Amino acid sequence: MKSTMQEGSLLIKDILRHGREVHRTSTVTTITEDGSTTATFTEVADRVDRLAAALARLGVGIDDRVGTFCWNNQTHLEAYLAVPSMGAILHTLNIRLFPEQLAYVINHAEDKVIIVDASLVPLLARVRAELTTVETIIVAGAADTSALGATLDYETLLAAEQPGYAYPDLDEGDAAAMCYTSGTTGNPKGVVYSHRSTYLHSMAQLSSSSVGLSERDRILIIVPMFHANAWGTPYSGWMSGTSMVMPQQYLQGEHLLRIIETTKPTLSCGVPTIWNDLLRAAEGIEVDLSSLRAVTAGGSAVPRSLLEAFDERFGVPLVQGWGMTETSPLATFGLPPVGIEDDEIMSYRVKAGRVVPGVEVRVVADDGTVLPNDGTSVGEFEIRGPWVTGSYYKDSDPTKFHDGWLRTGDVGSLDQLGYMTISDRTKDVIKSGGEWISSVELEGEIMAHPEIFEAAVIAVPDDRWDERPLACLVPRPGMTPSPQAVLDFLAPRVVKWWLPERFCYLEQIPKTSVGKFDKKVLRASFEKGELEVIEVAIPHSR
Amino acid sequence: MKSTMQEGSLLIKDILRHGREVHRTSTVTTITEDGSTTATFTEVADRVDRLAAALARLGVGIDDRVGTFCWNNQTHLEAYLAVPSMGAILHTLNIRLFPEQLAYVINHAEDKVIIVDASLVPLLARVRAELTTVETIIVAGAADTSALGATLDYETLLAAEQPGYAYPDLDEGDAAAMCYTSGTTGNPKGVVYSHRSTYLHSMAQLSSSSVGLSERDRILIIVPMFHANAWGTPYSGWMSGTSMVMPQQYLQGEHLLRIIETTKPTLSCGVPTIWNDLLRAAEGIEVDLSSLRAVTAGGSAVPRSLLEAFDERFGVPLVQGWGMTETSPLATFGLPPVGIEDDEIMSYRVKAGRVVPGVEVRVVADDGTVLPNDGTSVGEFEIRGPWVTGSYYKDSDPTKFHDGWLRTGDVGSLDQLGYMTISDRTKDVIKSGGEWISSVELEGEIMAHPEIFEAAVIAVPDDRWDERPLACLVPRPGMTPSPQAVLDFLAPRVVKWWLPERFCYLEQIPKTSVGKFDKKVLRASFEKGELEVIEVAIPHSR
Repeated sequence: MKSTMQEGSLLIKDILRHGREVHRTSTVTTITEDGSTTATFTEVADRVDRLAAALARLGVGIDDRVGTFCWNNQTHLEAYLAVPSMGAILHTLNIRLFPEQLAYVINHAEDKVIIVDASLVPLLARVRAELTTVETIIVAGAADTSALGATLDYETLLAAEQPGYAYPDLDEGDAAAMCYTSGTTGNPKGVVYSHRSTYLHSMAQLSSSSVGLSERDRILIIVPMFHANAWGTPYSGWMSGTSMVMPQQYLQGEHLLRIIETTKPTLSCGVPTIWNDLLRAAEGIEVDLSSLRAVTAGGSAVPRSLLEAFDERFGVPLVQGWGMTETSPLATFGLPPVGIEDDEIMSYRVKAGRVVPGVEVRVVADDGTVLPNDGTSVGEFEIRGPWVTGSYYKDSDPTKFHDGWLRTGDVGSLDQLGYMTISDRTKDVIKSGGEWISSVELEGEIMAHPEIFEAAVIAVPDDRWDERPLACLVPRPGMTPSPQAVLDFLAPRVVKWWLPERFCYLEQIPKTSVGKFDKKVLRASFEKGELEVIEVAIPHSR
Repeated sequence: MKSTMQEGSLLIKDILRHGREVHRTSTVTTITEDGSTTATFTEVADRVDRLAAALARLGVGIDDRVGTFCWNNQTHLEAYLAVPSMGAILHTLNIRLFPEQLAYVINHAEDKVIIVDASLVPLLARVRAELTTVETIIVAGAADTSALGATLDYETLLAAEQPGYAYPDLDEGDAAAMCYTSGTTGNPKGVVYSHRSTYLHSMAQLSSSSVGLSERDRILIIVPMFHANAWGTPYSGWMSGTSMVMPQQYLQGEHLLRIIETTKPTLSCGVPTIWNDLLRAAEGIEVDLSSLRAVTAGGSAVPRSLLEAFDERFGVPLVQGWGMTETSPLATFGLPPVGIEDDEIMSYRVKAGRVVPGVEVRVVADDGTVLPNDGTSVGEFEIRGPWVTGSYYKDSDPTKFHDGWLRTGDVGSLDQLGYMTISDRTKDVIKSGGEWISSVELEGEIMAHPEIFEAAVIAVPDDRWDERPLACLVPRPGMTPSPQAVLDFLAPRVVKWWLPERFCYLEQIPKTSVGKFDKKVLRASFEKGELEVIEVAIPHSR
């Protein structure tokens, strides 16, 4: 029996409408070299209409791909709202891709138009000659565009149009946006979000069980809009009237401190390395981050030491979430459960978050058996739900799916209350003497050492144990912690057989285009003999 | 172009799953005559499985209607979760319907099974002989069931089954539950909710822009589960791990005060008459309602005096929402906007709430023109969205719909920030000398008088002005406010030509089965000459 309910679709144009009609006075602030610019949602929405009209005049229609090559700023938000609302498909381009990958994703997605920030014109120019489908490049801001050939000026295009675009009715299953994963092997793979998935994901972010965005918030969006849609915050923020602060390229700790102190956000979101850098920048100076009710971190595990440092230094709770480009990305959020003692709270905060309503996560053994959510059974996480991808664009890649679930490539356990503990990426696991050592946990403990800035642990071959951990250390400036000092520090914190006997010192941990530790690069360096490995003797107990 | 997103449906079985897997330790407390009983979500979920298995064993299959004739209690929640999850359709029966209406809705919906609370057996027995489709009646609790003929015992059925029911995969458009409106004219009309609409409505209730239910809450659900699904709180509460307190029939102010003081809810929801009664019960005694972060009211306009009394007496914000059985019901929620001065807050709180993300409301003139959202243009509210009905069960009733929008029958204006001001029901409007007088606003002002407990205003014929307001007053116990005293009180509060010249005194305002002022009954009494109308002379200025 069918219900009597109305049959309308969940569309991004309705997100646009709600923000413009109900939250007119909310604002979008873009940080500039010498200050900031601010526009109300009404002003932004009118420009969104003008952008849609301009794109339509350029021949952009249903399903045409419009790429963006932009920092986090108002222009980028306008594209986020205009392109899917008009039935075209937003393709956010990661400005940190290698040129050959950038050309690959633009050609693979068949982008017809690209909107580029003036400051990024030189980066895009490097691949212009390789682009086979791009007909029009629109430049936002003043730049020498000669290296791009013919271009159009964003503001000139908008000035020629009027507010009041008639957005089409679409099916909620239609493509709205696409984002390529920063594949660590092979070519990047495209995830295509639907209007439905974006709408539902936005609703999930408004939930008090997760980020709980509302008009009472102002969010400093640090995570790039070219990476997993800035975790969906531009859409959920617009839907809920959350004011937004867009930092553009001003992402160093010193910049962010100044931005927080002057724009007084209530929330912010970024990868752990950003928060680590903020702490570094705040060393020895007075800072006031009291406007923040929380900051959220995702993309990599957050070491306990970083959580504690944020508590102690700033009085700001750092909350972990977990997700992937393939999951829109919100899948877990790390609010602690109710009804526990104060001294138990940290034991939940160090986990990778609690499964949010709408998605389903399970732990699966190597042989495909589903394991219990008992907090101890370890296997690969698989996930499904209405904002989780079921394939890749023009590439079904069946190895990434299992009975309709996405295989996440993360390994760990789920406890009885839906909290995820990630011990490793499947490709980063260290199997020592038949037992797993969690590189993620070991890194977290090493990074708690006061003289260590960052640390990554990779598996290296070992004659006796098959694999053993190699600890790659980045000391804080001026510090020189010895392997023995690190081992003394670790001894009471991890089981004895986890203690690494191999160390190397680096100036920085190599990072992927989205700021994660790039262990693939570390492993390659090790294999080529490029790392200076120091071995120390530890009497193993097994 | 289609997205790559997974294609699963939004189903109530997934609400059930999420609460059971992630919020095991949340609780459901049912108030009993001599205390309360409490069960964890794990315990409730296991009983839900047993109920589904028992119903299946009784022959209940996909699309079969299962009626409930119950107070708010754990049994009722079990039916809420089991019946739709197994593919059958939950039909909540309003225990306050007249017998002929009750028999009508059961027969019209073709209920196959009815679950009835022991204490309500006599009420159901009155119509048993009229029921043409009911095959099985299941009684929860000990009762003399002889008047119902053969019945089954709820606990015996559950005891014979095991947890672990295999809930079917359904389409999200499939019917999940039905609820009949308490039609003021003609037969009640059925609204059939889908899995999709219930799921989306639940997500909307978790939003920080609306109720914001989460595991950190415990909600005392006063609004009946037989009325618009208790405003959806059983589903949204379960989905978010919100602990629930179910008051059964203990709904008098004295009971509710005791329940709040002993169970310490953070939230509660009920119609304004409930909150008025709570204030009355608290007069002259010490009460501690400090556990409440807010209470919500809907179903009727909340007079400013009631909002102020809750602030002053209890220190608890009373927040208005607006909706209908036809809208699931959440459509607006009355959090004030940010960025306003403290002394402006009340001017927003007295409105009927702000449109929540997901639904769209417009104001339409008599001739069908859509009016601007300017806070002054008055017309009928029309609404659309994924949890709004598009027809009635076996009755498309085109007069209630307009271009795909539901005509709400409420008249008023929307302001620029999406706040709704309701001046009247279309059928209650008072048109005096060609101008509208808002009966709702007039009632609110009269009820601010310290000697008035309740007041309802209806239109009565007038030779000179076509219609004039008749104020029906219920004084507080022992009080005898004169018409002149009321007029003196009103004079500085409303425009002069709104001042009523006709008064009558009642012991109570007649109420509908869901607790709203029943002005239809008042009008009928007036027409039959049953009201003692006192006329006073007022020199009108127009």
